[in-house]
Amino acid sequence: MGDSKEEVESISPYGLARSTVKGEPLSKDDIEKYNDFFKASLYLSLGMIYLKKNPLLKETLSTEHLKARLLGHFGSAPGQIFTYMHFNRLITKYDLDAIFISGPGHGAPAVLSAAYLEGTYSEVYPEISEDEEGLQKFFKQFSFPGGIGSHATPETPGSIHEGGELGYSISHAFGSVFDHPDLIALTMVGDGEAETGPLAASWHSTKFLNPITDGAVLPVLHLNGYKINNPTLLARISHKELEYLFLGYGYQPYFVEGDDVETMHQAMAATLEHCVLEIRKFQKKARDSGVAFRPLWPVIILRSPKGWTGPRKIDDKYLEGFWRAHQVPITDVHKSPEHLKLLEKWMQSYEPDRLFAGGKISDDLKALCPTGNRRMSANPVANGGVIKKPLRMPNFRDYALKVERSAHTMGPSMSNMALFLRDVVANNMTNFRLFGPDETESNKLGGVYAAGKKVWMGEYFEEDKDGGNLAHAGRVMEILSEHTCEGWLEGYILSGRHGLLNSYEPFIHVIDSMVNQHCKWLEKSLEVPWRDKVASLNILLTAVVWRQDHNGFTHQDPGFLDVVANKSPEVVRIYLPPDGNCLLSVMDHCLRSSNYVNVVVADKQDHLQYLTMDEAIIHCTKGIGIWPQFSTDAGEEPDLVMASCGDVPTHESLAAVDLLLQHFPELKIRFVNVVDLFKLISHVDHPHGLNDQEWTAIFTDDKPVVFNFHSYPWLVHRLTYKRPGSKNIHVRGYKEKGNIDTPLELAIRNQTDRFSLAMDAIDRMPHLHNRGAAAREKLYNDQLKARNEAFEHGVDPPFLNNWTWPHTGLWKQTIAKLT
Amino acid sequence: MGDSKEEVESISPYGLARSTVKGEPLSKDDIEKYNDFFKASLYLSLGMIYLKKNPLLKETLSTEHLKARLLGHFGSAPGQIFTYMHFNRLITKYDLDAIFISGPGHGAPAVLSAAYLEGTYSEVYPEISEDEEGLQKFFKQFSFPGGIGSHATPETPGSIHEGGELGYSISHAFGSVFDHPDLIALTMVGDGEAETGPLAASWHSTKFLNPITDGAVLPVLHLNGYKINNPTLLARISHKELEYLFLGYGYQPYFVEGDDVETMHQAMAATLEHCVLEIRKFQKKARDSGVAFRPLWPVIILRSPKGWTGPRKIDDKYLEGFWRAHQVPITDVHKSPEHLKLLEKWMQSYEPDRLFAGGKISDDLKALCPTGNRRMSANPVANGGVIKKPLRMPNFRDYALKVERSAHTMGPSMSNMALFLRDVVANNMTNFRLFGPDETESNKLGGVYAAGKKVWMGEYFEEDKDGGNLAHAGRVMEILSEHTCEGWLEGYILSGRHGLLNSYEPFIHVIDSMVNQHCKWLEKSLEVPWRDKVASLNILLTAVVWRQDHNGFTHQDPGFLDVVANKSPEVVRIYLPPDGNCLLSVMDHCLRSSNYVNVVVADKQDHLQYLTMDEAIIHCTKGIGIWPQFSTDAGEEPDLVMASCGDVPTHESLAAVDLLLQHFPELKIRFVNVVDLFKLISHVDHPHGLNDQEWTAIFTDDKPVVFNFHSYPWLVHRLTYKRPGSKNIHVRGYKEKGNIDTPLELAIRNQTDRFSLAMDAIDRMPHLHNRGAAAREKLYNDQLKARNEAFEHGVDPPFLNNWTWPHTGLWKQTIAKLT
Repeated sequence: MGDSKEEVESISPYGLARSTVKGEPLSKDDIEKYNDFFKASLYLSLGMIYLKKNPLLKETLSTEHLKARLLGHFGSAPGQIFTYMHFNRLITKYDLDAIFISGPGHGAPAVLSAAYLEGTYSEVYPEISEDEEGLQKFFKQFSFPGGIGSHATPETPGSIHEGGELGYSISHAFGSVFDHPDLIALTMVGDGEAETGPLAASWHSTKFLNPITDGAVLPVLHLNGYKINNPTLLARISHKELEYLFLGYGYQPYFVEGDDVETMHQAMAATLEHCVLEIRKFQKKARDSGVAFRPLWPVIILRSPKGWTGPRKIDDKYLEGFWRAHQVPITDVHKSPEHLKLLEKWMQSYEPDRLFAGGKISDDLKALCPTGNRRMSANPVANGGVIKKPLRMPNFRDYALKVERSAHTMGPSMSNMALFLRDVVANNMTNFRLFGPDETESNKLGGVYAAGKKVWMGEYFEEDKDGGNLAHAGRVMEILSEHTCEGWLEGYILSGRHGLLNSYEPFIHVIDSMVNQHCKWLEKSLEVPWRDKVASLNILLTAVVWRQDHNGFTHQDPGFLDVVANKSPEVVRIYLPPDGNCLLSVMDHCLRSSNYVNVVVADKQDHLQYLTMDEAIIHCTKGIGIWPQFSTDAGEEPDLVMASCGDVPTHESLAAVDLLLQHFPELKIRFVNVVDLFKLISHVDHPHGLNDQEWTAIFTDDKPVVFNFHSYPWLVHRLTYKRPGSKNIHVRGYKEKGNIDTPLELAIRNQTDRFSLAMDAIDRMPHLHNRGAAAREKLYNDQLKARNEAFEHGVDPPFLNNWTWPHTGLWKQTIAKLT
Repeated sequence: MGDSKEEVESISPYGLARSTVKGEPLSKDDIEKYNDFFKASLYLSLGMIYLKKNPLLKETLSTEHLKARLLGHFGSAPGQIFTYMHFNRLITKYDLDAIFISGPGHGAPAVLSAAYLEGTYSEVYPEISEDEEGLQKFFKQFSFPGGIGSHATPETPGSIHEGGELGYSISHAFGSVFDHPDLIALTMVGDGEAETGPLAASWHSTKFLNPITDGAVLPVLHLNGYKINNPTLLARISHKELEYLFLGYGYQPYFVEGDDVETMHQAMAATLEHCVLEIRKFQKKARDSGVAFRPLWPVIILRSPKGWTGPRKIDDKYLEGFWRAHQVPITDVHKSPEHLKLLEKWMQSYEPDRLFAGGKISDDLKALCPTGNRRMSANPVANGGVIKKPLRMPNFRDYALKVERSAHTMGPSMSNMALFLRDVVANNMTNFRLFGPDETESNKLGGVYAAGKKVWMGEYFEEDKDGGNLAHAGRVMEILSEHTCEGWLEGYILSGRHGLLNSYEPFIHVIDSMVNQHCKWLEKSLEVPWRDKVASLNILLTAVVWRQDHNGFTHQDPGFLDVVANKSPEVVRIYLPPDGNCLLSVMDHCLRSSNYVNVVVADKQDHLQYLTMDEAIIHCTKGIGIWPQFSTDAGEEPDLVMASCGDVPTHESLAAVDLLLQHFPELKIRFVNVVDLFKLISHVDHPHGLNDQEWTAIFTDDKPVVFNFHSYPWLVHRLTYKRPGSKNIHVRGYKEKGNIDTPLELAIRNQTDRFSLAMDAIDRMPHLHNRGAAAREKLYNDQLKARNEAFEHGVDPPFLNNWTWPHTGLWKQTIAKLT
């Protein structure tokens, strides 16, 4: 490939513009203005990186005007500014509704300068005024302690995509245009980030974009040639390969290449206009005919040098068009007077004195920008909380599972909740979607298809009619890419809508880092007064560690909770509803909430049901509680606290209580269930935490606690290490012991089964003496038998499998005493 | 796209074979044999899923022959078997050295049946003999409690890729062929997994494959059309788009499509042979000329129905060629006598009585397989420990940083270690590589380029000569995809070589899930007696949370340690060397070790140096220790233990000791440093853990401990909650408090700075009374001043920044007493 001289030359970013779309839509006067606007923006970009004083270089540049530490990135700014600026022409010309997504890492100088020149910045931050004084503050705050970052952080007007971590620009962009039929998300994709997996997968998003009900993404792949220290892959393959790649992804690529500014203006202006018209044409065709289809959506491939318009070489070392232009382009200006001079000359070449005469750009230049909400930096879509409508919620109580006797009947917690979810979908057909990596049906949520099928813009086959549940216009989004699902959902929420991701628990680690980044976005947003709260990011985890009958060890990892629990308590919530009515109550709460990452963990299999809806509401509202129907302490000091968190663990804990009572009917056992994990942590460290008095009222401060936990056991210790009596808490949970197992056998392997828990309890009650030892031996033998039966027959013994809570009479007394 | 009828038809998997490569290399007799072999394999695949008795269906099939729970996946097995079997012909014909990588989820029936028919299975598991009895055991153990999984788990001969989590087949494959010039990795890629980000990115691996020194990957994209419940994207786009996509990725696609078995045999045989010859041609051209180049490597696109050869419909519901064939194809055979009959008829159609007459396949059929190590199921490359050679290690002591006075001079810990790494590279030019996502230079490891440059098979530009450090034959692998880097490294290690991944700490979460899966692979491998130990997976994390001057909040996440600490203690190790000599000692240890995931966390900036090489070796060997040169307890009971783990935290802790001594010169302070994190946990829970006696000898069981930790503080609590005196341990660490900060300012925000630590200590020593309060106020004021200076000037006050340990005399006494 490309070993001919000709091709090598053709992928250089230098020279007169070469473009797929021909045409010269700009007048000479236009070009002059765009030149000036470009220069003004570039000046601001360099100013942010270098200056804390002398913002318009009215004085000769000296080291005392410079920031002590030079931080920030210039490399991708010119290409981004160029794109932004020329798209503004089309916003005005066609009255477009558009947002700008800055994919390349550290692209903030580009979007900040745009927001400043458009006036948005001074509107939301009046102290950063459009004059010399404001400019100085604007420069100083950039990448400065106590100031703002060099990504498009939440503080950046118009941003829904920080770009701190790379790879999510395209999925965020598609998320933002779903159900926003008039929106165009102009999306710069860095050629660095284009190497990441999440980005490579997300190009396929067009196969889920309905041209009737959704808007459009206009991606601009920015081949500026270099990452931090390396060339980029896509900038070093032949034209043909690039073209094929995008045709293969389902796009029509339009090239704009070169570094000659004047001809590049024409090429970019013509190309962007052609693409906008293509988008409108496709949308019109689909909307007029009512027939959705998947066109070859346009993508622009912009090849311009990294650090474009900077010096090509300094001291015989390449700068412009090389990786040295990635960050601070000239680093030693504090020490080298020559280089300081060179920087000054470079900055002066952007003519700050002329362009910012009077401290701001001329009205003529300002007129190149759209006004009001049409400015990409001021589009309310990018401050999604402002346009967010609350969900029209069905009454979750209407979906209650009937529970006549606690722990006595099995119920389909998850597929029942799917009916509630179905009606959430039905009530909110344009602002709620369900996302999942090909697992919605497997996760027993298929009930939602009655209200909204799975979006599919690929080909249809005959057999799709046989329960395929595919549709051009659907409400469920399924692609086998957790990254793309999560990116879509984030984009959908950040642009003012609501959603839920469902996923197998073990593979949610695939998006650990994305969820981390979203948590950070939410946390930082709380500090930005003009940002309204967006809907919570809701993650439903099922196919849990404890029920991996088909899958075994690779599918056993409940550690996502550890990752989430590390994030700021202001933005994370974790719920483990023990049964179907609790699941309904928790989901209702999560869907109504704002600005959180809510993680709900619930098994998809049928389960014993414990609480009536009324009881469930009370229990979930408290988040933690004593279950008197399974307790024998009658409100007095217990001998033992049995606690559980998670549906499978709760089942085993209750069966353990039964075993204990068979042996020791006189035992005063208190049963505690935890729904809201952060109840365990001190209220000092998380707003949901119990205070120590509340804690002691539930757990005591001196009695043994045998706690059966869904996840890795250490998480409970990490949450409770400060608690009174923490030494007495014995936690069981998953410990990387697994294989292909029956449910009970897997529990036995990890000592979270009823027998182990009962033995744990006995070990902590030495006063049982010989009776304890005898009971222990019996339990151990029964456990061995159960295990052998699993190995022999491949299933758990039915009498254990079908266990229900056998006790009645006595417990009524306890309840009576308590209520 | 594809809205014409013609195109819709052309992407159906049914009908006579259609293929890019024409030709009929097989005789009629050949075809008959391959038919039989195919049937035998398919029979085994169904047998594994269904049968626990009656393995050859000699009796009429009844429910008691069935497993109680039907588990396993049939869908992708036929296409995989078909590919494997036809490649065997070429292995024999051309004496190829090849391994098979099974990408699709749950592909085990295909590879297990191959290993069984080739005889390998019975060689490594003699009890699974090649007769009826062995067959019964072979069937029963599959997806059965206590048995083996439905992925290509470590128990599977010939596997280096479990495929429990999807998306890594291609990167694993490339990893295995780097520096194995004669190896071909025949790699099935599921069309489900092809939707994942990691897989989408990894196609670009050819841009890093040198045809002279590396082998080849022959990918077979298996379009079997469906995932769990959905069609796959790539099976529902037009031929043209598919072709473009692979041309764009840099491959020459060869289609093989259809379901007519006879013509498909010819098509597959001809196509595989063409591809093998193409690969050899490219390799020969490069090797003969000595000029490496990047050809269009072949990729096969195999379109065959899911559950191929199964019933197309059952009860009017689609099975073959639909998602219902994904898992257990007929699920209700226990309950439905008709369906049981149908299953029997289906299984009998594979003619077990004829093909397994006498309990095993005929010699004629067996002759279709290669023999010995040429069998893909027996290739030693797939049991990498067997062929692994120990690294030829330079003596790390030779790279020692000179430390004349502890904590007095700054040294370049990381770039110095790079020199050691350079010589590791130089000494092991064919079995060690360094991997990183475009961060090697940024991480100050650029020194290695002197021994091995960065592999680059893309185009070269003029400016690459200016410090580009690119080469066709290099030892450093850089692509901006953590997933691809990690996948390459895993493949490289599992096939018997050594390596190191370097990455920014915050973004290592991107591969949390991959590392989890690798840990699980290693852990399970320990239970497989015939698997030899492979080299450890070494991960060097730098650009740490505490030095994010350019990047801010998005780049602050030290939580990877929490993810790793959840894995089995048998396979994970975490090191936080405090200085340059410790870093050398730790790296040497990690590179020599086997079967671990070693995580080393070290800042890349210059740091105070504490230990001479001799001291460092002792300290790192112990993993934890009292540092007498910074202690004033002279081996007696201390008033206070100051502990640290991590380089930046150690610096601040020592500065805190200095502050405390300025105020309270009489204080008996013990300074403890932790290098090996698992020293903190009980020896009962991790082989590196201290016992409680050792613990108390260091930390006491009653004195206040102020512990400054690199990561989230709760991890220390989770490791130490059982320890004597754990209530007295006060841990500081990162707490999601960040922005753009100077180093000291960030520490202050998180209370890990010297002032906060000193105040923490004072708060825990009430006997200091008023003196304590006065000192506290002074410290608080100084802290405020430092913070304000950062906000004002953008840098930390130099006198704080340049702090070194000021004390001499007194401490010699302490050391004398202790030694």
